[in-house]
Amino acid sequence: MRLLLISSSTVHGHGYLDHAIPDIARILGTRKRVGFVPYALAGHLGYTVQLHERLSQIGAEVTMIATPEDVRSVEAIFTGGGNTFRLLKALYDRALLEPIRDAVRNGLPYIGTSAGTNIAAPTIRTTNDMPIVEPPSFNAFGFVRYQINPHYLDAEPSTTHMGETREERIMQFHEENDTPVVGLREGAQLLVENGSTTLAGDRPARIFRRGQEPVEVEPGATLDRYLD
Amino acid sequence: MRLLLISSSTVHGHGYLDHAIPDIARILGTRKRVGFVPYALAGHLGYTVQLHERLSQIGAEVTMIATPEDVRSVEAIFTGGGNTFRLLKALYDRALLEPIRDAVRNGLPYIGTSAGTNIAAPTIRTTNDMPIVEPPSFNAFGFVRYQINPHYLDAEPSTTHMGETREERIMQFHEENDTPVVGLREGAQLLVENGSTTLAGDRPARIFRRGQEPVEVEPGATLDRYLD
Repeated sequence: MRLLLISSSTVHGHGYLDHAIPDIARILGTRKRVGFVPYALAGHLGYTVQLHERLSQIGAEVTMIATPEDVRSVEAIFTGGGNTFRLLKALYDRALLEPIRDAVRNGLPYIGTSAGTNIAAPTIRTTNDMPIVEPPSFNAFGFVRYQINPHYLDAEPSTTHMGETREERIMQFHEENDTPVVGLREGAQLLVENGSTTLAGDRPARIFRRGQEPVEVEPGATLDRYLD
Repeated sequence: MRLLLISSSTVHGHGYLDHAIPDIARILGTRKRVGFVPYALAGHLGYTVQLHERLSQIGAEVTMIATPEDVRSVEAIFTGGGNTFRLLKALYDRALLEPIRDAVRNGLPYIGTSAGTNIAAPTIRTTNDMPIVEPPSFNAFGFVRYQINPHYLDAEPSTTHMGETREERIMQFHEENDTPVVGLREGAQLLVENGSTTLAGDRPARIFRRGQEPVEVEPGATLDRYLD
């Protein structure tokens, strides 16, 4: 498998996908036909046009994945961000989960941002999104063995808000689950090739394991030793 | 039904439940035996002791609701905050959803904080919590016809974080659902008596309806005209 799992499509002060374009170009290589999965947002066509305009700048052509047959005609899959529950429900409703999973496991490169990164994990249990619709299951693609928390956010010491911090939420996840979690800050992405996960981008990531202190890892690091 | 739906058990700068104690005392009246539903947190006994110590200061006694039979021996139900998915799953797993729903519909006073407030709505689709476990359904008590978003948080204009604001998340909910949503800031609570909802506490609430501009309502206001 070849995966590029991006925390967020936009980083403060930069344009849409700008920070991730070098990694996107690298994982696409000579492939041009990108199939887009836009269902995390409500406006599918506009979202597809937005990605097409951005990726055409690096020579790629974007089409929408609407049916299982569409998966066979593309050279890479790109799943955009938005609401993870809505995205996963659409993948079940459109019978797209299995065909995309099989194709990616057979070598079709996969790129995800935010919700598209969440669903690369075994489940969506570490999403930040509001459960606005009810998918038939929280089980997702499972391309990697670990969970990912995109848009990972450090606690703000000066806040007066009493809601849980992101770290507290992930600790609650580990009260109920064993799977390691990569807290992926905006500006960071995971590159998965030959069964190995490398941290790309310009931000450290924070790795959470049940019963252990969280670990900070720097860009360029191989994360496998923390995630097995 | 008599309901007190509290946004958060603690408000910055005040002790556990302090801001809500006058409303809790009022809804309990002369009732002393409070049944606590602690399943939103992992430590059930410690959580129950914490509530007992606080409510004993106003003359109430707290016991834990573990089985459907326990519901019959108490004079009020109190459901504490934590993780809404974990709470709802426990209510299904322990077969407590129906007995508590029936008892409250038949007049047993209900007090909820945070997750305990979320589950008073028809569904948990407007929780802020991470979906750390998978309940068999998002359907909840449905004591009120509208959804509630506890810990409602106004957008922070200076943030560089690109994740959705709370208002954007509720707008995504309304892309998929018709039900009105009360954004309940910390320090606010809803008092539901005789089929009518009043905003209590010291913070305005923000009401969201599909296809309409959000509305700010002040403490003391009756909200029914916005929620029918």
